Amino acid sequence: MKLASIKSGRDGRLVVVSRDLTRCTDASRIAPTLQAALDDWASLEPGLRELAEGLESGSMPVERFHERECASPLPRAYQWADGSAYVNHVELVRKARGAEMPESFWSDPLIYQGGSDSFLGPRDPIVMAEDEAWGVDMEGEVAVIVDDVAMGIDAADALDRIRLVMLVNDVSLRSLIPGELAKGFGFFQSKPSSAFSPTAVTPDALGEAWREGKLHLPMLVRVNGAPFGQANAGVDMTFDFGRLIAHAAKTRPLCAGTIIGSGTVSNKLDGGAGKPVADGGAGYSCIAEIRMIETIANGKPTTPFLRFGDRVEIEMLDRGGHTIFGRIDQTLARYGA
Amino acid sequence: MKLASIKSGRDGRLVVVSRDLTRCTDASRIAPTLQAALDDWASLEPGLRELAEGLESGSMPVERFHERECASPLPRAYQWADGSAYVNHVELVRKARGAEMPESFWSDPLIYQGGSDSFLGPRDPIVMAEDEAWGVDMEGEVAVIVDDVAMGIDAADALDRIRLVMLVNDVSLRSLIPGELAKGFGFFQSKPSSAFSPTAVTPDALGEAWREGKLHLPMLVRVNGAPFGQANAGVDMTFDFGRLIAHAAKTRPLCAGTIIGSGTVSNKLDGGAGKPVADGGAGYSCIAEIRMIETIANGKPTTPFLRFGDRVEIEMLDRGGHTIFGRIDQTLARYGA
Repeated sequence: MKLASIKSGRDGRLVVVSRDLTRCTDASRIAPTLQAALDDWASLEPGLRELAEGLESGSMPVERFHERECASPLPRAYQWADGSAYVNHVELVRKARGAEMPESFWSDPLIYQGGSDSFLGPRDPIVMAEDEAWGVDMEGEVAVIVDDVAMGIDAADALDRIRLVMLVNDVSLRSLIPGELAKGFGFFQSKPSSAFSPTAVTPDALGEAWREGKLHLPMLVRVNGAPFGQANAGVDMTFDFGRLIAHAAKTRPLCAGTIIGSGTVSNKLDGGAGKPVADGGAGYSCIAEIRMIETIANGKPTTPFLRFGDRVEIEMLDRGGHTIFGRIDQTLARYGA
Repeated sequence: MKLASIKSGRDGRLVVVSRDLTRCTDASRIAPTLQAALDDWASLEPGLRELAEGLESGSMPVERFHERECASPLPRAYQWADGSAYVNHVELVRKARGAEMPESFWSDPLIYQGGSDSFLGPRDPIVMAEDEAWGVDMEGEVAVIVDDVAMGIDAADALDRIRLVMLVNDVSLRSLIPGELAKGFGFFQSKPSSAFSPTAVTPDALGEAWREGKLHLPMLVRVNGAPFGQANAGVDMTFDFGRLIAHAAKTRPLCAGTIIGSGTVSNKLDGGAGKPVADGGAGYSCIAEIRMIETIANGKPTTPFLRFGDRVEIEMLDRGGHTIFGRIDQTLARYGA
């Protein structure tokens, strides 16, 4: 089943979307918003699945589905906790600045608390007051939306609490990160509003690509129309989503509708991540990573961060080449312009 | 005007509360929940104020108001961004571990992103799997709830976006903080669910105690019934709420219902904060602070953090000695017991 929120008011209007993303049907008779559906998932899911079946069989009134009309599936959420599960990415960051990564990073998940009150829609511009000065970057990630999660849950049980899967562009302001992290309290200004894929998809609809708490498909990232990344999200993910959820719930329960992110998808260098897509490599899911590799190789980065007018696309295709979640497609725009 | 959320479902039932906190009237005809009221504040506020006036004049159907029936005013929120505006507190933390605090901390606000999906009610127990091992502490703070805030707002305009004021117990797990901050991504497990005061109060109802974006009254903190703190929240607050909001909104808008916290209220040592309340001092709004002062004086702390069964009370009285927001009153309980 695929769900989306058509832009309307603060929380959107819930629709069930056809598998091929061409049609949808209004779900407001069952739940007006996705958060409302998640608040009472056990009793509302069967009705939503009936709509999904009716949509495929043609027995349901339909509207055309346009990704450009979508808000993020949760236009605002009660929690956005973003992990850093591809530890390779973290190791590269440290290596680029000549620092050792603590060994514990391979066994103890790293998660930061993100802002969740003002997500961007998947086709909304990324509006910023500065481009070069702030070092605007994308981060292509996978995220899950969970049902209520009890405090202290273990990783195996946590997997059963996953209701929906999405893609994310975790917009990051690279030039603001060092100063902010040096203050010791984590990210704030350096992590502005994120954008999510047009649809959120139940794990069963992902077939065998969803297994062991990971999504085993390439994360396709394009910058200004050119292929930039195709790292496989199921490879080199040190902590699966069960581990990430359990980490987040160690000292408090998580409310239904909590979003947990994977962190930037990144494959190891010896797996081809060091090579651009054009050379058959996995490429990169963020600009920071190619800059780190450039720094390690040449002493300094050469690929610039995003400039006003630059475009970023993030999506994932199934084995048949069809988009699964729809496409995040954003342009960097100047605030007030 | 004072507002509260009586426990009911996930988001509570909105009531308008009398000034003396003895009576309330149902507001669901105007807005079912506080978030719903905040989502459309400009058009709904007049109706809520009519209820408040009717409540005082006796022209309104009333219920008895019981603080123990309250959830936090926002039982869950889309954002909880907590500052550290009493820089004295930060300086003490550093001094206790023999570190210098960067000079920039006096001019650049420090804010962390907190979890906002599962707040505790003001009389709910603080339920934890460990007490001593995790170092459970309270933090008595002031917080404001804002209306929609535009990205890039300045501090003066930000003050006009404050709709409600509350108290907070920002529960902190001191023993988990050093390891978590060392990882570089800020707090997560070390900041479990916070609790807020039974009512949220409009700035005008605070009279002259609310001025220049600060609340000029003592923050009364008791531990196991004994006075522990009475630091004045209007004193030594380096950054007023306008500054904190502007900092939070530098790179993204804030959604109506965003909560901004002051950080632990703390008065400077020469203002009496080094002295216990029993000796006429301002005392402490968290246990960590007295432990820092003990460490500076004696080389090690002697006051223990909270143990299972310990009780914390946080409230604020007006000049007449009446509680303004109602009382946060929580006991530390063992998870699963």
